[in-house]
Amino acid sequence: MELWESGERHVSWAARSMPVLTAIGERFALERPFDGLTIAACLHVTAETAVLMGALKAGGATIALAASNPLSTQDDVAAALREYGVAVHARAGVDRATYYRHIHQALDVEPDLVLDDGCDLVNILHTERTDLLGRVGGGCEETTTGIIRLRQMAAEGALRFPVVAVNDTRTKRMFDNRYGTGQSTLDGIMRATNTMLAGRTVVVAGFGYCGRGVAERAKGLGARVIVTEIDAVKALDATLQGYEVRPMAQAAPSGDLFVTVTGNRDVITAEHLAVMKDGAILANAGHFDVEIDVRALDELASEVHRGVRPNTDEYVMPDGRRLLLLAEGRLVNLTAAEGHPAAVMDMSFSAQALAVAWLARERSGLEPGVYDVPEHIDHEVAGLKLAATGISIDVLTEEQEDYLHSWRVGS
Amino acid sequence: MELWESGERHVSWAARSMPVLTAIGERFALERPFDGLTIAACLHVTAETAVLMGALKAGGATIALAASNPLSTQDDVAAALREYGVAVHARAGVDRATYYRHIHQALDVEPDLVLDDGCDLVNILHTERTDLLGRVGGGCEETTTGIIRLRQMAAEGALRFPVVAVNDTRTKRMFDNRYGTGQSTLDGIMRATNTMLAGRTVVVAGFGYCGRGVAERAKGLGARVIVTEIDAVKALDATLQGYEVRPMAQAAPSGDLFVTVTGNRDVITAEHLAVMKDGAILANAGHFDVEIDVRALDELASEVHRGVRPNTDEYVMPDGRRLLLLAEGRLVNLTAAEGHPAAVMDMSFSAQALAVAWLARERSGLEPGVYDVPEHIDHEVAGLKLAATGISIDVLTEEQEDYLHSWRVGS
Amino acid sequence: MELWESGERHVSWAARSMPVLTAIGERFALERPFDGLTIAACLHVTAETAVLMGALKAGGATIALAASNPLSTQDDVAAALREYGVAVHARAGVDRATYYRHIHQALDVEPDLVLDDGCDLVNILHTERTDLLGRVGGGCEETTTGIIRLRQMAAEGALRFPVVAVNDTRTKRMFDNRYGTGQSTLDGIMRATNTMLAGRTVVVAGFGYCGRGVAERAKGLGARVIVTEIDAVKALDATLQGYEVRPMAQAAPSGDLFVTVTGNRDVITAEHLAVMKDGAILANAGHFDVEIDVRALDELASEVHRGVRPNTDEYVMPDGRRLLLLAEGRLVNLTAAEGHPAAVMDMSFSAQALAVAWLARERSGLEPGVYDVPEHIDHEVAGLKLAATGISIDVLTEEQEDYLHSWRVGS
Amino acid sequence: MELWESGERHVSWAARSMPVLTAIGERFALERPFDGLTIAACLHVTAETAVLMGALKAGGATIALAASNPLSTQDDVAAALREYGVAVHARAGVDRATYYRHIHQALDVEPDLVLDDGCDLVNILHTERTDLLGRVGGGCEETTTGIIRLRQMAAEGALRFPVVAVNDTRTKRMFDNRYGTGQSTLDGIMRATNTMLAGRTVVVAGFGYCGRGVAERAKGLGARVIVTEIDAVKALDATLQGYEVRPMAQAAPSGDLFVTVTGNRDVITAEHLAVMKDGAILANAGHFDVEIDVRALDELASEVHRGVRPNTDEYVMPDGRRLLLLAEGRLVNLTAAEGHPAAVMDMSFSAQALAVAWLARERSGLEPGVYDVPEHIDHEVAGLKLAATGISIDVLTEEQEDYLHSWRVGS
Repeated sequence: MELWESGERHVSWAARSMPVLTAIGERFALERPFDGLTIAACLHVTAETAVLMGALKAGGATIALAASNPLSTQDDVAAALREYGVAVHARAGVDRATYYRHIHQALDVEPDLVLDDGCDLVNILHTERTDLLGRVGGGCEETTTGIIRLRQMAAEGALRFPVVAVNDTRTKRMFDNRYGTGQSTLDGIMRATNTMLAGRTVVVAGFGYCGRGVAERAKGLGARVIVTEIDAVKALDATLQGYEVRPMAQAAPSGDLFVTVTGNRDVITAEHLAVMKDGAILANAGHFDVEIDVRALDELASEVHRGVRPNTDEYVMPDGRRLLLLAEGRLVNLTAAEGHPAAVMDMSFSAQALAVAWLARERSGLEPGVYDVPEHIDHEVAGLKLAATGISIDVLTEEQEDYLHSWRVGS
Repeated sequence: MELWESGERHVSWAARSMPVLTAIGERFALERPFDGLTIAACLHVTAETAVLMGALKAGGATIALAASNPLSTQDDVAAALREYGVAVHARAGVDRATYYRHIHQALDVEPDLVLDDGCDLVNILHTERTDLLGRVGGGCEETTTGIIRLRQMAAEGALRFPVVAVNDTRTKRMFDNRYGTGQSTLDGIMRATNTMLAGRTVVVAGFGYCGRGVAERAKGLGARVIVTEIDAVKALDATLQGYEVRPMAQAAPSGDLFVTVTGNRDVITAEHLAVMKDGAILANAGHFDVEIDVRALDELASEVHRGVRPNTDEYVMPDGRRLLLLAEGRLVNLTAAEGHPAAVMDMSFSAQALAVAWLARERSGLEPGVYDVPEHIDHEVAGLKLAATGISIDVLTEEQEDYLHSWRVGS
Repeated sequence: MELWESGERHVSWAARSMPVLTAIGERFALERPFDGLTIAACLHVTAETAVLMGALKAGGATIALAASNPLSTQDDVAAALREYGVAVHARAGVDRATYYRHIHQALDVEPDLVLDDGCDLVNILHTERTDLLGRVGGGCEETTTGIIRLRQMAAEGALRFPVVAVNDTRTKRMFDNRYGTGQSTLDGIMRATNTMLAGRTVVVAGFGYCGRGVAERAKGLGARVIVTEIDAVKALDATLQGYEVRPMAQAAPSGDLFVTVTGNRDVITAEHLAVMKDGAILANAGHFDVEIDVRALDELASEVHRGVRPNTDEYVMPDGRRLLLLAEGRLVNLTAAEGHPAAVMDMSFSAQALAVAWLARERSGLEPGVYDVPEHIDHEVAGLKLAATGISIDVLTEEQEDYLHSWRVGS
Repeated sequence: MELWESGERHVSWAARSMPVLTAIGERFALERPFDGLTIAACLHVTAETAVLMGALKAGGATIALAASNPLSTQDDVAAALREYGVAVHARAGVDRATYYRHIHQALDVEPDLVLDDGCDLVNILHTERTDLLGRVGGGCEETTTGIIRLRQMAAEGALRFPVVAVNDTRTKRMFDNRYGTGQSTLDGIMRATNTMLAGRTVVVAGFGYCGRGVAERAKGLGARVIVTEIDAVKALDATLQGYEVRPMAQAAPSGDLFVTVTGNRDVITAEHLAVMKDGAILANAGHFDVEIDVRALDELASEVHRGVRPNTDEYVMPDGRRLLLLAEGRLVNLTAAEGHPAAVMDMSFSAQALAVAWLARERSGLEPGVYDVPEHIDHEVAGLKLAATGISIDVLTEEQEDYLHSWRVGS
């Protein structure tokens, strides 16, 4: 089997888990929103991305693709994409210089639109390739970090075209934060420890979207859940959903399992480690590995046994208690499980595909700046997802539209 | 027992269910935010309102109170308030002329601040009593309808002082829409029908905050829940929470109980009534009685037995099926149960008390217009509610504050 | 409207909530299992009982009915039954002598089979009317108390015919104990207090079938639930279902609402009352009013306000705390709500109807003694209930029957 | 590190997850229930079994251990046990002849008590080593299959000593069937497919203890659950718990995921496969691989892709639909996840340890036959488990004991 054949198989497997993006690709093939347009993209070169590229190409786009991270490049997928007519400038494991050369090569197509993941391509456009700026009508950026950079550029008047922040849509947040993180976090904990959750006390630190998802899943697996929070409104909501709420210092002696998901540092510290039960398990589902004070754990422990189970280290305290740290305090759902199911990527990339089509249509009328994904796109993605699941919903009658409208404007 | 004594007992009973407002009253007594200020209020003259009046008076206010609806006036509470030093212009069951005279009398105190419930007092101020406008520094309005009128006034440049829309705060919405409506709707249905919910199929039309609450409670009582929606994003969320989603036409033949909570008209129509099961129960938890097409029910039925149970009418169809309509299609939680528990009013009136104090402090710097309740007030109410429930939460350390801040501004 | 017409309307309304018993009646009309047989019954003369009488009569029985309690007799139902051809010896509110005369009159028909509710009729048969014993082929007894008496009679060799204990069947226990008591207990508490359950801490004492039902419904309404138990296996099961388990002395300071459902006395005593929170609510869902020590409450209180809400008394402790006792410590689901929904009676009376038919068929081969309801009757009732609900299930194929059989006997 | 050291580490890790058995071992060390007694055991030679051996030896027993299956023997654990003074006759991967020789060697100690797992040792005792029968006072058998053989022996009068069926205790069934199988089945499905369960429709075939556990966990992970059953009572219970119940033929077109857990064959057949959705996932959690008709799947498929994910085979139907079969239709929780967590083995082996002690004490008074685990042992295990979890429960007062007793005997 040739490399591109293996890649094609992977892409086709991914496509089957991405029914929404597939449906969008089919619609693009009819509507051809990108006829005559050129797109330069800097994204992870994976099977899921290939499905996105396929949808854009079906819509008429000429595409050049560079990798946003050489480590994630799947060479067989790159080969399949080239076979399909996408100009791919990417290879697994290339050095830094090659990485940047690839981005330049992608830009050489003189794009009308750009897709970015981390802002490197847009940054190069605004510094080294300003000659191309005149042609670029707009872009999409996928990451939160990239968006922060773009907002700063916009604030300083440096950003030269409209960019859609495709990371945050309601449908994506549902799939990703609440239900995705909820399930994958518990999945990671079970894979790492094979511990039974029914009858255990799980302390969830943080009751944002992710924390809520983790709490729901822990409860759904039979655990008693205690929530810690620093925000009174979220804490109150947790109590109204039936959870017990305590400060961490009071939760620490009760927990069998601790999951931090706050986005903040030092959520579990030496003070808490000192009073935990023998056998307590510590896991982090927040983005950075700063939530559990691993350094304190290292300093306190009289002995450390690494790898007593996959992704599980055992810290023996001087008083004999044993604490189990999962995934070294890094994201337990990515490290010990497999991160987001394809259903999540389907939502994100579908919003991205529709955002690019919207940009293609509206770009001439948009000022430079950072834009949220237009609300109708969110509804479109949700509608396509329902359709792909075989679910239909009601449609407003004319009388109902009138009624809602009349009520909203007052009588 | 004198009238005022009975009133005092009712107020004292209400106060015990309103710990947050009581705590705010105690704080006001120390801080005296209203010293030297006069407040005119047009509100339902009930025991709960009396607790609010008590808090404002404890804070130093001179108060005149008129009824926002003569039907809800509790004369014994009015007597108790007068005994306590509030000028009450209200009596149960007065006619329209007296109603307006009472509002004028309340305005005669020449208020610095006003509290309104339906915009009548503010309206009179802007039409018949414009002489007083110079003094009024701001107001609060409780109802959605009132807010719509105020926004129109603001849009036309007619509004002459800042008004806080106290109806919508996150804490109030939690207590009121999701958890309050959820419980009281099922409570009303059980009181009306004494039907067992475990094992029944409940169709919930609408998955907004209220519909979500109704669905959660029906599921919590053992029912299988089917959701209908017209919004794809909400419909998708319903499926992700484990509910089945269908159009009403497909849900109609399956339901044992139907609850409409959409805010729209004609949610259940002749088409749906035609295919429902014998014995199906119809209830509405939306604000207006337009969601179930009661006229169609009347026209279709060959026989109607009113009052077969409290708040329950039986409609016999020509084919022999019997449909049960609760509360004539009006709000089932208010008609068949008792509406909001005191805990909900505690949240609303606490936000209102803090909003008035905020107005008292900030009014000189505020432009005329409609203002949302400042976010910190929501946090304050939530914090006081947690404290009243004996729950404490974590507090950010300085390092954590710095970390969050640094992250938010980017690196 | 004549008395019997009113009765007929009530019976017809009840029949609509008893689809299983109605279906059995229809089958009896075809199969005529009681042709030529006479039945004497001593039961509550209510609309539900009338549906049972109708089913037996449809099956060919000649029936005489006396009241098992004069207080519950519905005179209009009695009139309707007489109109239908059942000999009813019952009138609301008769004195003791008349009560017993009525039972004798019912026995005068010289029954082949008897139905009893509390063992009075069977007792009279074995003492004052032994002349009739030769003819009686069997009976049914509905109450637990009656069964205890019958077992003693059987143990002493005094029981002269087979009696089926119709109270305990799996389907009835499901409907009655777990789901019926669960819902009606919370229903009663909401009607009495209108308190919001979301966010409250509910202490459920006892984790038998009923306690489990109460805990599930409290959790389903958003409460945090703490369970107390004296049985380690049940306590362990409660933890595995996600509940917190504590001794009452440790639960007492945490509860907002306490529900006793243990079947034992002194579950909540002075020791616990002393440490409860201000505003705590006390309710009993156990059969007798001995679970909460009401006498201790009376002695401890410095003041008692009866009826502050329907079925709610407020006890003021010397330290100012106020405890709320519902329904004077008697069954809260019967006192403050309406007890069992008709769906429960449908299960019980259906089992009874089938048990009588079984007795009619098998009585000649049965020794005197107390019998459980044959298992196939339970399956039949469940099957009819499913059918009435429009639910069908799978049927074993011949190969599957063989497989199960071969496996059970070993290979 | 020597072999026995590695074994000791494994045993010590297992012991930490088996707090109940550890506590029993500590008690045995004080009470010495096996002083002077010899035990021959034929069990899986694993770390968990080693903890059991340790408890018996601490209680004074002389032990000889053979393997009940050479494939599961952990040689390092065997080495550690020998070091500890247990005579182990076992080695990984030995042939059939050696397997039986090992059992004979274990019997050579002339045991007073025996532990068996599959009845091979007891069988040899009753056929080839009848000389030893006079001394054997009793035994324990772990497996259902073994118990079936023993009951046949007892029925034929061939069994010569009392045997306790240690497989079925309430605590073990809770941990094993309901909560253990429930979690591990979903765990296996997530590991195999990484599919998101929220929003999916899961069809659970069978609503026994295991099926109930699977349904609860699927619901707890956000799925909509449909149950199929052949038993009306169980089906009714499923509806009362809020599940939808359908025959498999009607469930088949709706499911995204199917889990069979009936104990019967042909639960999913060609007829059902023909109407399933593209992408449907099939998993079995029943003991034998006969529930899903894999042969039909093979015959129907036009193409099969083995291993598209770990433990996942893709069957392409002629009409293009793709069905995913997990673990070749064998037990998905054992194949794709890790089977029972240690907490389950802790319950089983604790019951076994206490049953052996009971036999040691009571054996002289017991007739040959198969005995259930005495109920008090179940309570003891549950009590120790609660204690190990730090949970205390209430204890009956003398008055309460009296009350219960008086009530039970009647008044």
